[in-house]
Amino acid sequence: MKIHKNLLLLVLVQLGLFTHLFAQKPDIQRINPTNWWVGMHNPNLQILVYGKNIATSKVSLKTYNGVKLKKTQTTENPNYIFVDVEISKIAKAGNLQFTFTNKQSSVNVSYELKTRSAHPQAVSQEDVVYLIMPDRFANGDESNDKYDNMNDTQVDRKSPWLRHGGDLQGIINHLDYFKELGVTALWLTPIIENNTHQSNEGGTMRSSYHGYHFTDHYQIDRRFGGNNAYLKLINEAHKKGIKIVQDAVYNHVSEDAWLVKDLPAKNWLHNWDKYTNTSYKDQPLYDINGSKFDNKITEEGWFTAFLPDLNQKEPLLANYLIQHALWTVEYFGIDAWRIDTYIYNDMDFMNRCNKAILDEHPQMLLFGESAVNTVIGQSYFTKNNLNIPFKCNLPSSCDFQVQGAINTALKENFGWNEGVNRLYQTLAQDIVYQNPEKLVPFVENHDTDRYFSVIGEDFNKYKLGLTWLYTVRGIPQMYYGTEFLMKNFKNPTDAEVRKDFSGGFNGDSGNKFLPSGRNAQENAAFEFNKKLLNYRKTSEALTKGKFMQFTPFDNGVYVYFRYTDKQKVMVVSNTKISETSFSTENFAEIMKGTKSAKNIMTDEVLNDISTLKVPAMTAIILELK
Amino acid sequence: MKIHKNLLLLVLVQLGLFTHLFAQKPDIQRINPTNWWVGMHNPNLQILVYGKNIATSKVSLKTYNGVKLKKTQTTENPNYIFVDVEISKIAKAGNLQFTFTNKQSSVNVSYELKTRSAHPQAVSQEDVVYLIMPDRFANGDESNDKYDNMNDTQVDRKSPWLRHGGDLQGIINHLDYFKELGVTALWLTPIIENNTHQSNEGGTMRSSYHGYHFTDHYQIDRRFGGNNAYLKLINEAHKKGIKIVQDAVYNHVSEDAWLVKDLPAKNWLHNWDKYTNTSYKDQPLYDINGSKFDNKITEEGWFTAFLPDLNQKEPLLANYLIQHALWTVEYFGIDAWRIDTYIYNDMDFMNRCNKAILDEHPQMLLFGESAVNTVIGQSYFTKNNLNIPFKCNLPSSCDFQVQGAINTALKENFGWNEGVNRLYQTLAQDIVYQNPEKLVPFVENHDTDRYFSVIGEDFNKYKLGLTWLYTVRGIPQMYYGTEFLMKNFKNPTDAEVRKDFSGGFNGDSGNKFLPSGRNAQENAAFEFNKKLLNYRKTSEALTKGKFMQFTPFDNGVYVYFRYTDKQKVMVVSNTKISETSFSTENFAEIMKGTKSAKNIMTDEVLNDISTLKVPAMTAIILELK
Repeated sequence: MKIHKNLLLLVLVQLGLFTHLFAQKPDIQRINPTNWWVGMHNPNLQILVYGKNIATSKVSLKTYNGVKLKKTQTTENPNYIFVDVEISKIAKAGNLQFTFTNKQSSVNVSYELKTRSAHPQAVSQEDVVYLIMPDRFANGDESNDKYDNMNDTQVDRKSPWLRHGGDLQGIINHLDYFKELGVTALWLTPIIENNTHQSNEGGTMRSSYHGYHFTDHYQIDRRFGGNNAYLKLINEAHKKGIKIVQDAVYNHVSEDAWLVKDLPAKNWLHNWDKYTNTSYKDQPLYDINGSKFDNKITEEGWFTAFLPDLNQKEPLLANYLIQHALWTVEYFGIDAWRIDTYIYNDMDFMNRCNKAILDEHPQMLLFGESAVNTVIGQSYFTKNNLNIPFKCNLPSSCDFQVQGAINTALKENFGWNEGVNRLYQTLAQDIVYQNPEKLVPFVENHDTDRYFSVIGEDFNKYKLGLTWLYTVRGIPQMYYGTEFLMKNFKNPTDAEVRKDFSGGFNGDSGNKFLPSGRNAQENAAFEFNKKLLNYRKTSEALTKGKFMQFTPFDNGVYVYFRYTDKQKVMVVSNTKISETSFSTENFAEIMKGTKSAKNIMTDEVLNDISTLKVPAMTAIILELK
Repeated sequence: MKIHKNLLLLVLVQLGLFTHLFAQKPDIQRINPTNWWVGMHNPNLQILVYGKNIATSKVSLKTYNGVKLKKTQTTENPNYIFVDVEISKIAKAGNLQFTFTNKQSSVNVSYELKTRSAHPQAVSQEDVVYLIMPDRFANGDESNDKYDNMNDTQVDRKSPWLRHGGDLQGIINHLDYFKELGVTALWLTPIIENNTHQSNEGGTMRSSYHGYHFTDHYQIDRRFGGNNAYLKLINEAHKKGIKIVQDAVYNHVSEDAWLVKDLPAKNWLHNWDKYTNTSYKDQPLYDINGSKFDNKITEEGWFTAFLPDLNQKEPLLANYLIQHALWTVEYFGIDAWRIDTYIYNDMDFMNRCNKAILDEHPQMLLFGESAVNTVIGQSYFTKNNLNIPFKCNLPSSCDFQVQGAINTALKENFGWNEGVNRLYQTLAQDIVYQNPEKLVPFVENHDTDRYFSVIGEDFNKYKLGLTWLYTVRGIPQMYYGTEFLMKNFKNPTDAEVRKDFSGGFNGDSGNKFLPSGRNAQENAAFEFNKKLLNYRKTSEALTKGKFMQFTPFDNGVYVYFRYTDKQKVMVVSNTKISETSFSTENFAEIMKGTKSAKNIMTDEVLNDISTLKVPAMTAIILELK
């Protein structure tokens, strides 16, 4: 079949076998994107072609209805040529036939235009996102744990910093676990190839097991199962009603990335006379009193010494990154897109990139990691209500403000600005966002201390904070292990909060996937999450409703509602160390007409709701009738 | 002279003597405003006329060129009639002759229209505002300390809660002190009549010595010297180049206010079934997730049980308050207007009120007391860059965010969000304000702990924080005694931070107005303020310049600049407990071309500024050459 032939050609190209096949002919080692589609909103496509001295080739395109070869561009590196084509609305799926001709000879290259089939599902308040670090979750295929022909050949579960062997098949194997738990979307830390050498950090050798060090954008890491395993995961997950969020990294690539090892042009990277790290400060990016110096440090400083920082102002590189994003959505059929280290990217580039994706799929959720400390800072990096020259077009953001508020609230006593007032005050500043309901609040992720440890392993506080997470506005995000009390601080390193999911690996003594592998408190935690998340799925108020909060009163009692025309859910949080009892008359504007209420966690029905009594450090969730 | 006759009439009206003079005639006890002006931007004037059963009178106006009697309005209280007139551009100064006629008889009332003479001076970054509590500052006229015919007849310097006898003449007597110190504007806590009874608070009797409990808007308190003393102060101050900021209170009046004792209408107050205090929370006013209940509590709840909360939605009351503001500006010739408890007012009313003043005097500085805890909260209550339905038109605000940042920064160690990073991060959020340069930062006021106590009475920190206050963007505000280290916490009450200015009162053992009355450290403090403030006056960069800050580095070194085309001032703050030394190359974008620098506090000239060395916990201020 024709398609098979084309795939074979692409595989050969990717493996660099053309070097041998066409010794004197134009030597094509890579073509990116590896294919494209007809019927895209944007008719333009810029194909990167890589091979020794390829830049000297003339390129021609065999007549193809609706497709035009517009121009070619070369860079200071003779091993690259960029081929710009325009694919009009009338073009049909098929194979473009390019001919690359140099002084010696010529070579034909077939380039597939597919029919589009991706339909990303909107990730919204209806969802609960579960964050997985695939290497640490479950090993479903031990045959792909390591490869002798990769730069890092080790797998070693004894080292917190080396690969442990988890993979996409391991996730596929546990899709029913997520169903049972009640989560509806999986966010995996990056699964793109990280064919990196181990780095020596403070005397210990470390691998990029977390996936953030890309070496080839167009390959899913073989150790996770490659492109096919990812396609399989997405297909299987979708069948079970689970969506997939991909983790994107635009800011940098690995020093082992093929692009870096033979850079198209020096200016594809941010170059400094001497090594310069980013300051990690967001303020210089929006500070009207700020300096150009600090702005440059934040944006162009390197994230670490072994992660070359990409210069997204370079048009060819910008296209390369944007097209990879579009390719990923179309090729794999993912649902949402989480953008790593959002604030260190070039903001104009990010807007172009976001727009390119949204032009193709207007409802798609894109959200950024903007690890900042203020509501204004966070709002700057998403669609906001600030009347300022730069208009960020990113639909959503990880909600670090709610994360900080919940964690800190549970560690301290109630005060004018303290305790649960932190959460209240954070949510009271939603005025600055265009779409606060699209924010992604969380209590922990792979870069934070574990929530259960932060709150002093207090199970009542654990339930309180998760109740907030799952019932306030936004799209809640949990982290693998949240549901059974995984703990630890990032001491000595963040590997401590990225421990293996016990039971995901052959030979594990325990199995947290099963009730029998969890102790009593862990089972109580699991059941708490399961009950609440599965209720949440069915609750119109929690998944589509508006949010109304009341000022905390009585030194730590916080009441809020989620509501639609059809359903009202009331959440009462008593953060005090003693029981509270209060009249509900102050909530008349929303409770009007309510006759009874059902505690959705205990199924208890309250026939008199004129007063409510709530035990110390407890939240109750009432569906009003 | 005619004018004298009119004044006499008004005095008689004010004293209620008409009751006797015209027993059967319409009985006019008060007319507010007490006069008006021709040539106002707004041609409309609504005169409140108060007297027993006056509402039954017919009102007529003797023909007056350019003035029309438009209508009269009455309320449920027969003792009020409101007379609406229109004063066109052609009207000339003179006396309107109204006739009030009832069944028995009629009475003529002369009402003066003056020629406008007020020219408020813009209070801007060129100024430094010095806040005085007149009762506690200096007693310049012991004959007005107390009056047996007032509700509170006591003066007692031994009680922290009673009146101490300070007055406007006391301030007049020390205008040269302010000149010497280098401040350019005085903000007095309110001097409007507070003819209040003492209140029993927690078992102690308290007076409204602070002035915030108005009983008659149109009288300056006799114990401060009355209207004439205020006119004299303003006149004398202006002659010495010192501006006057008046403290306005719209939200409430005293329970002893004449208006409250015979309310025009019940709905002039916010009435509650049972006493309801404001929550003092700002969040409900802008929280898109907030409740009507909390919004009402914040705005309509009473500030204290003895301060009836005014319903500014009532049109007659709104006019009364707005006209009083306009009258104050025109009558006394004040320069700026500080608005107490801004957030508890009705925001639509405040916008109308602000607009009314700004329509008459577009350059006038109006700034609000919005004692809130977030930049977003603060921005909501001044002209901001928030794209939201409610557009606040208040030009400026007390900058509580900078106050909190400076005080906290000096109490804690440097950290990612701590220490001087608090100030940096606060100023980095200026993007949300339309005019951050108009904000009024401060380190202490009459409602806060004393700055010197907060920072542990550390003299180096004292100078550091005041350097920030006087050199960052905005209009710095200090509080009487800041300059010689007045201290204390608000324990047990805020009277502790409102101690007498020693030397302002007969019989004081010390005299802080004089070097001989200050100890060595107090003199050092005074000289520090004097040197810096007097330099500031002459510095184009500090008074008109832009602001540029750099991200703090080296664990606590903070560098910023003020600059115009002609002058650059560099402020280097080392908040560490050890000396710092650093290259200035990172500041090239602003320091380019600089050959030398003068330390404006020591007059030392630095001929090599490629590196700088700054001692521990010290700021240096360099004028670049």
